[in-house]
Amino acid sequence: MNANESPRLTTALELTEELTSPLPGSRKIMIGGSRPDLQVPMREISLSDTPTLDGNEINDPVVVYDTSGPYTDSAVDLNLATGLQPLREPWIRQRADSEVLSGTGSAYVQERLQDDSLSRIRFPRTMQPRRALADRNVSQMHYARQGIITPEMEFVAIRENQNLEAVRQSGIQQQHPGEPLGAITPPVITPEFVRSEIAAGRAIIPANINHTELEPMIIGRNFLVKINGNIGNSALSSSIAEEVEKMIWAIRWGSDTIMDLSTGKNIHETREWIIRNSPVPIGTVPIYQALEKVDGAAEELTWEIFRDTLVEQAEQGVDYFTIHAGVRLAHIPLAATRRTGIVSRGGSIMAKWCLSHHKENFLYTHFEDICQIMKAYDVSFSLGDGLRPGSIEDANDPAQFAELETLGELTNIAWQHDVQTMIEGPGHVPMHRIRENMDKQLTLCQEAPFYTLGPLTTDIAPGYDHITSAIGAAMIGWYGTAMLCYVTPKEHLGLPDREDVREGIIAYKIAAHAADLAKGHPGSQIRDNALSKARFEFRWEDQFNLALDPQRAREYHDATLPKESAKTAHFCSMCGPKFCSMKISQEVRDFAASGGTELSPAGLEDGLRSKAVEFNDQGASIYQKV
Amino acid sequence: MNANESPRLTTALELTEELTSPLPGSRKIMIGGSRPDLQVPMREISLSDTPTLDGNEINDPVVVYDTSGPYTDSAVDLNLATGLQPLREPWIRQRADSEVLSGTGSAYVQERLQDDSLSRIRFPRTMQPRRALADRNVSQMHYARQGIITPEMEFVAIRENQNLEAVRQSGIQQQHPGEPLGAITPPVITPEFVRSEIAAGRAIIPANINHTELEPMIIGRNFLVKINGNIGNSALSSSIAEEVEKMIWAIRWGSDTIMDLSTGKNIHETREWIIRNSPVPIGTVPIYQALEKVDGAAEELTWEIFRDTLVEQAEQGVDYFTIHAGVRLAHIPLAATRRTGIVSRGGSIMAKWCLSHHKENFLYTHFEDICQIMKAYDVSFSLGDGLRPGSIEDANDPAQFAELETLGELTNIAWQHDVQTMIEGPGHVPMHRIRENMDKQLTLCQEAPFYTLGPLTTDIAPGYDHITSAIGAAMIGWYGTAMLCYVTPKEHLGLPDREDVREGIIAYKIAAHAADLAKGHPGSQIRDNALSKARFEFRWEDQFNLALDPQRAREYHDATLPKESAKTAHFCSMCGPKFCSMKISQEVRDFAASGGTELSPAGLEDGLRSKAVEFNDQGASIYQKV
Repeated sequence: MNANESPRLTTALELTEELTSPLPGSRKIMIGGSRPDLQVPMREISLSDTPTLDGNEINDPVVVYDTSGPYTDSAVDLNLATGLQPLREPWIRQRADSEVLSGTGSAYVQERLQDDSLSRIRFPRTMQPRRALADRNVSQMHYARQGIITPEMEFVAIRENQNLEAVRQSGIQQQHPGEPLGAITPPVITPEFVRSEIAAGRAIIPANINHTELEPMIIGRNFLVKINGNIGNSALSSSIAEEVEKMIWAIRWGSDTIMDLSTGKNIHETREWIIRNSPVPIGTVPIYQALEKVDGAAEELTWEIFRDTLVEQAEQGVDYFTIHAGVRLAHIPLAATRRTGIVSRGGSIMAKWCLSHHKENFLYTHFEDICQIMKAYDVSFSLGDGLRPGSIEDANDPAQFAELETLGELTNIAWQHDVQTMIEGPGHVPMHRIRENMDKQLTLCQEAPFYTLGPLTTDIAPGYDHITSAIGAAMIGWYGTAMLCYVTPKEHLGLPDREDVREGIIAYKIAAHAADLAKGHPGSQIRDNALSKARFEFRWEDQFNLALDPQRAREYHDATLPKESAKTAHFCSMCGPKFCSMKISQEVRDFAASGGTELSPAGLEDGLRSKAVEFNDQGASIYQKV
Repeated sequence: MNANESPRLTTALELTEELTSPLPGSRKIMIGGSRPDLQVPMREISLSDTPTLDGNEINDPVVVYDTSGPYTDSAVDLNLATGLQPLREPWIRQRADSEVLSGTGSAYVQERLQDDSLSRIRFPRTMQPRRALADRNVSQMHYARQGIITPEMEFVAIRENQNLEAVRQSGIQQQHPGEPLGAITPPVITPEFVRSEIAAGRAIIPANINHTELEPMIIGRNFLVKINGNIGNSALSSSIAEEVEKMIWAIRWGSDTIMDLSTGKNIHETREWIIRNSPVPIGTVPIYQALEKVDGAAEELTWEIFRDTLVEQAEQGVDYFTIHAGVRLAHIPLAATRRTGIVSRGGSIMAKWCLSHHKENFLYTHFEDICQIMKAYDVSFSLGDGLRPGSIEDANDPAQFAELETLGELTNIAWQHDVQTMIEGPGHVPMHRIRENMDKQLTLCQEAPFYTLGPLTTDIAPGYDHITSAIGAAMIGWYGTAMLCYVTPKEHLGLPDREDVREGIIAYKIAAHAADLAKGHPGSQIRDNALSKARFEFRWEDQFNLALDPQRAREYHDATLPKESAKTAHFCSMCGPKFCSMKISQEVRDFAASGGTELSPAGLEDGLRSKAVEFNDQGASIYQKV
């Protein structure tokens, strides 16, 4: 492996307008916290006024959660070769429980650094990794359990609160129908509530002390539902530049975390570029890189190679590791008679290792050793579901639930070390079997956050699995899953390109938001209400700007009505001017409202008879109110 | 209005290869019934063999429901200008309860026929409409209640049964978790079961006696979930040729019925072309055309104009009418304070009429008159939800449920006339409020089939409302909705083009199939199992061919691995050859299976220890079995 194999140079990296322009009608705002260096970014969407008979009605701007980081902030100078500002650096330093290392603890990294042929693709700035002092634990869970509210906790508390004033005014009722185990999201998220949820293990803030560029976020079912986007090269395609671009693109559309699943060339260097430029948590599956190191021969994997990989990635700043420690030797035969066997890459690698050696999974036997590494950097566990079902027929089978039980045991061990932990879930599951997954996970894993891939609700739509899975994702999000791993239209068929990433992210933003609405999360419906009001009032620009994908909404509108004047038209191309129900409906409302007609069936008789005459006298026409 | 206004001539109509070629790997088969002229079309997907150590394993072909009609039948000569074969003609004639009329009963049609300027766009063959003899009732419900099993009932019974042998062999368990009111789909659908469901009002076969070209289908919650695709021109765009093309395109991808929602030019002539060439039921909203006849002035609508429109369309062969008879005068004020008022076009037209005249909705006061027309042609009611919510905030509100209660009353009246009836439903509904819609509908409307638009589970994704609504559609389908009206990506923004129609149809085929799986409908999972088996065995061509959209699946695969050899590769571009979980998983299975190792945790200890040695001796490599 050498740099010449890289199909594109990293210098091809360009921050185009398409990646960095603020979304239309939007600007970055910062909400300050208790210390000057605690500034929480939000996106504010400004709205136009509604014309009325009494003058203009002002529509308050809508503030939305913003994952795009400094890329959409016109006030920030960006340089990919230096990376983002290390905003968490002072917070970490001030805790005085970690030290900057003089060199890397990974033998593999030492080798890479000696290799001059890699200089062309290496991230230009050399990082000095930081690690906990001996016998110290730098995890957010550890602080939380000691009663400490960290700046990270305060940051996410502010971040989770949006449009509080609008919520108060709207009178939207909070509801938790169907919510398992009685979770409750308070109307206002306080730093203390964040701390208590993390202490209880119900939420995590993935935040490696070596990822100082991070804008902290929280994953837990009493917070907004989050989504993850996967990127990563494979042996067959993609370059570093493409992967960094995909990351920036994915967070622009709303990805809350990014998993770098690279299995191809230069994994180490690619990851460095990604982390240094990422404002969102980065997750990885370290076994993929470990397998690269033994040239794909699973049986040659050893604890030592794997351990070195964990240290390598922890020093770089990876925020969460998928660890397939639940694929125990005894579970493997349960999967042999399945329709689709083991479909998790990590799971199948470990199964092969177990069978080759006839030994228990070394990730399981070394689990406490792994915990020692996790807490020295605050890497969170994402306990992998190596035996997740890969087809409708395999859903909720003994193999899957045997592993889930093991993941529950491992969660307890991780928590004994105060290591933050979430649990990965399926997969392919028909709708009527989704709820059982959530209920079992909450019980077996003591309410640790659930992080699912979909689930896909049918196997028969390759090319559209962002949709088959958005259905399952929305449902399991409502039931209590904290983070949804996206699926792109290319799932099962190929590697996603940029357009696929966008399609996958938007499908999952839809699923997550639909789940937030169904959970009655405070503030979620404010955006729906604002968009629907804009739609009803024919404020087309506002409707576009409030959409999850303003560009797509505008393109589709312009496909039939391209002229600028159509943006203020009181109709659209679906029905044309005469048949517009929204128009007629406004007319009905104006008619009913003008002259103080009682808006009740009882008062209708008297009021409407006279109004009918007046209405017809006015020519039964619209636009009376402007 | 004259023919010159038609933007494209109907002679532009061309049956391209893209519209008529059989789907890849598929052929049309016919299952014969009790009489020679009863031939039920199915699509058979042939599969390749699986190579094994003991020779090839044969994979049985998979038979799927086929809505595409003769267009995909290479044995049929197609001519749009003569229309499809009138296959129901002998069935209807033999019942001897209807007569061929000497002329049209519609004054409007008489005028149109006199207008020579329309000859260029008029369907070339003049139809002689048929109507029930005096005091006779030709509805399928009427026959069903008399204990008669019609050829239409036998046709749908055969059509609903697929892969029965495979179901028996698979041992797939039928389940009805969450199913309201204890519906039960039997393992084998018999003609008698069809009859009893229609007699009870739980299902309908929309089948106007003037739509003889129809391949009958059934809508009811104890049958496969169906989907509807909307087409239709508006004042702003589209021609007859485009609409006929959209119809053929929509049924190619799986639309079970088509609604022609035209509101623009030459509605009458467009509809004739569509019906004469449609093998699926056609639905309309007659008030749209009635409104055209009064040049868009809702207040000028009269019962006489509407009645003439019903007769006009019934004589043409429209199979179901959306009638907004539930928008009562007293309900209108309930909608005035809504976020988005009245969003149904039909509902807002009737509301405007009611307010202008301060009178009860004439569709409500003339409901029994309408029933008289319906039963004379066997047009089914689709009782419109004119007050459906147009935003999350308006979901399940008093206006919506007041109308639903009225629809329940009207259902009873329709049933007194033995008129087949289904009920339209929302709209925009957050996930936690969907179930209430289904439960209320079943109770208030005495289990008449429910036919919903989505529902959309959030308002914030214009451009992606096929996804926001597929989530709600899948859920409400599972809960018991019989037919799902599709939503395209252009919803709220513009008129769908052909690509949008395809996206909408596939999203809804996914929702309907996911619902069938969740309801444990016999035979549904056979296709999932076959596709997953093909996926697991790297039979790429079979995987594509079993997909809802084989072309898209193949295109996406070929985007990264275009070479023909990759179609037989035992890996894909997602992970590359080394990291393929499916490959490793097959290896695990082969290893566990070879040599008779007990596939249980108990038997594992002994078996695997020796197998580990053997496995490594064989080079721990794959492809042992071929």
